[in-house]
Amino acid sequence: MVEQADLMRDATVAQALRWIDAHTDQIVGEAIRICEIPAPTFEEAERAAYVRDRFVQLGLSDVTIDAAGNVRGRRPGAGGGSGLAIGAHLDTVFPKGTDVKVRRQGGRLAAPGIGDNSVAIASLLGMVGALNAGGVRTAGDLYLTCNTGEEGLGDLKGMKAFVADVKDRVTALVALEGMKINRIIHIAVGSRRYKVTFTARGGHSWGHFPSPSAIHIMGRAIAEISRLEVPTDPKTTYNIGVVRGGTTVNTIASEAEMLVDMRSVDIGSLADLERRVLAVIARTAREGDGQAKLELVGDRPAGRTAESAPIVQTALAVSKALGLPAGFGEGSTDSNIPMSLGIPAITVGGGGSATGGHSLSEAFDSTDSWKGTQRVLALAVALAR
Amino acid sequence: MVEQADLMRDATVAQALRWIDAHTDQIVGEAIRICEIPAPTFEEAERAAYVRDRFVQLGLSDVTIDAAGNVRGRRPGAGGGSGLAIGAHLDTVFPKGTDVKVRRQGGRLAAPGIGDNSVAIASLLGMVGALNAGGVRTAGDLYLTCNTGEEGLGDLKGMKAFVADVKDRVTALVALEGMKINRIIHIAVGSRRYKVTFTARGGHSWGHFPSPSAIHIMGRAIAEISRLEVPTDPKTTYNIGVVRGGTTVNTIASEAEMLVDMRSVDIGSLADLERRVLAVIARTAREGDGQAKLELVGDRPAGRTAESAPIVQTALAVSKALGLPAGFGEGSTDSNIPMSLGIPAITVGGGGSATGGHSLSEAFDSTDSWKGTQRVLALAVALAR
Repeated sequence: MVEQADLMRDATVAQALRWIDAHTDQIVGEAIRICEIPAPTFEEAERAAYVRDRFVQLGLSDVTIDAAGNVRGRRPGAGGGSGLAIGAHLDTVFPKGTDVKVRRQGGRLAAPGIGDNSVAIASLLGMVGALNAGGVRTAGDLYLTCNTGEEGLGDLKGMKAFVADVKDRVTALVALEGMKINRIIHIAVGSRRYKVTFTARGGHSWGHFPSPSAIHIMGRAIAEISRLEVPTDPKTTYNIGVVRGGTTVNTIASEAEMLVDMRSVDIGSLADLERRVLAVIARTAREGDGQAKLELVGDRPAGRTAESAPIVQTALAVSKALGLPAGFGEGSTDSNIPMSLGIPAITVGGGGSATGGHSLSEAFDSTDSWKGTQRVLALAVALAR
Repeated sequence: MVEQADLMRDATVAQALRWIDAHTDQIVGEAIRICEIPAPTFEEAERAAYVRDRFVQLGLSDVTIDAAGNVRGRRPGAGGGSGLAIGAHLDTVFPKGTDVKVRRQGGRLAAPGIGDNSVAIASLLGMVGALNAGGVRTAGDLYLTCNTGEEGLGDLKGMKAFVADVKDRVTALVALEGMKINRIIHIAVGSRRYKVTFTARGGHSWGHFPSPSAIHIMGRAIAEISRLEVPTDPKTTYNIGVVRGGTTVNTIASEAEMLVDMRSVDIGSLADLERRVLAVIARTAREGDGQAKLELVGDRPAGRTAESAPIVQTALAVSKALGLPAGFGEGSTDSNIPMSLGIPAITVGGGGSATGGHSLSEAFDSTDSWKGTQRVLALAVALAR
């Protein structure tokens, strides 16, 4: 890690780091502009068009919006170094029509999506601006993306497409999130999500009693699933997050559906849980004289980058050098995809700290947020060698 | 019942019965006009205003729309006889905006609500027209209503208010339904309906697992309720007809709700079932570290008019005399209210036969529908003596 400290004292790098310090307001202003362009998952196009223009203005090569809707660009290295991928997701959990106007009070910015993930996108753009300003040449190429589909039912589709394309040209990937300044996420929580639709004969609640009910079957399935034992280590969880079914109080329901979330930091434990949950569903449907239809609506692979991996240790050293708190953490983020493919990856914060993620009361504190941008710049220089 | 046959041969009654036969088209036309005035439960006012005007045109006394929204009127008798109440509900299950235009093909009329209950209202009006045309004087007064709130969550509110008012002035009540020509309903199926709202701490599906979930608690309650044993005699049933809960797949639900329907032909069996269902709800909520809030949204008392009661036997004899099929039946109709108060009551069909009740494909076959109007006229004459 002495090596890392040396890098940060390199003249061009030092100038780039100072540039960030001096341009915090510009980076924060960029985050505000980005936040105010709505970008619900699957509807990121308008925000993507803005970011593509910024990529072009910053002089990146091969700028494009790919088939998955990702904005892509490359900052060529001096040659001979390792390629590094850096990404920040474009999308938010907020539906079209949500008021995304940023309300500013000093260093505090309030708006849905300001932290998650406008700040991270702005940090990525700020890093490129700083590398340019300092005249920094990394050894390897930087493969940059502001990608789609990280939230909800996006199922990491943007990152899947991006990694499938760059996986042979990079040796590591850094994903930026605007909410998570305090942790280096190196464990990818995997998840499998299903929409389960139960159907049964149904009928009139009086005239056809006890005709099979889709709701009664679903209730039995939920009851059994809710009693399944799962390991705490490796941590494994389940949740039936949404249910809906039936038409009127006096109609025996012919249809009901539920959304099931299963997660684990361990692929095997997740697969085992999934097997048990699906068995309960199939059996309760059969015993209740109904049917269950499964639709896989989420599939995020589990994975892990070893704490000893250079990317993790470098992130730790850089964070320490910048005075940023940096414990280890786990999460379900874009870096699930490279980790699951054996590509060393981490997710780190883009700068500052945000609260109220995924809620309308989301807010971002920009105090020292320039340190987040400095961290990703230092990581880029250190890893693209 | 010889007496009954005699009555039908009385000169004025015979003339009234012939008038009905000759004015079938007029009565069917009235049903069409009524059907095309939307009248969802709780929104019967427009249809009520039309029917009130018809009551006035027919020369009824004391015509009014009461506080419950019921159209009310009285046809005074000659004096000294028993008062008789006759009702037909105004409301339909179809929400505002449903296309209620009647499509006619010969004697077949198709429209939501044409059978249930436009035909019955038209039959009630036709009966009054016929009594007038024949110059029939009943002995007792006829207390007539086209009432509100028979369907769904209306909870028989119109009939409750009507009976509370007339109960000391009538000795029996006849309710008319447009769908049920074949049966004399003399058993009132009672029901108790609850909206149950479960709440629990909830949280993030990964970070807060296994925090209490309102959906998981509700599932356990449904599973237990769905296994409750109930008697087939007296027939007793339950149904969880509608469920809804949660916000997103990866949020542990803090709220979930379900609509529960419980029915029986026997008050005691219904009370026993209700006790057991509520106990399951309370216990599963407690064991799951959540809460359950109960809201009674339906309360229809059970009841029964003996097969040997004059009103039932008269209905049987009149039906037979008119060549109408007439078995005995049970149901949940406006006559639940008088039956539960010990007032002899039945529900009979208004004429013709309808199919697809409570569905958009409802249709009415007007073949011989005049016999239904004749039946209620003969019942009025026989019972208001």
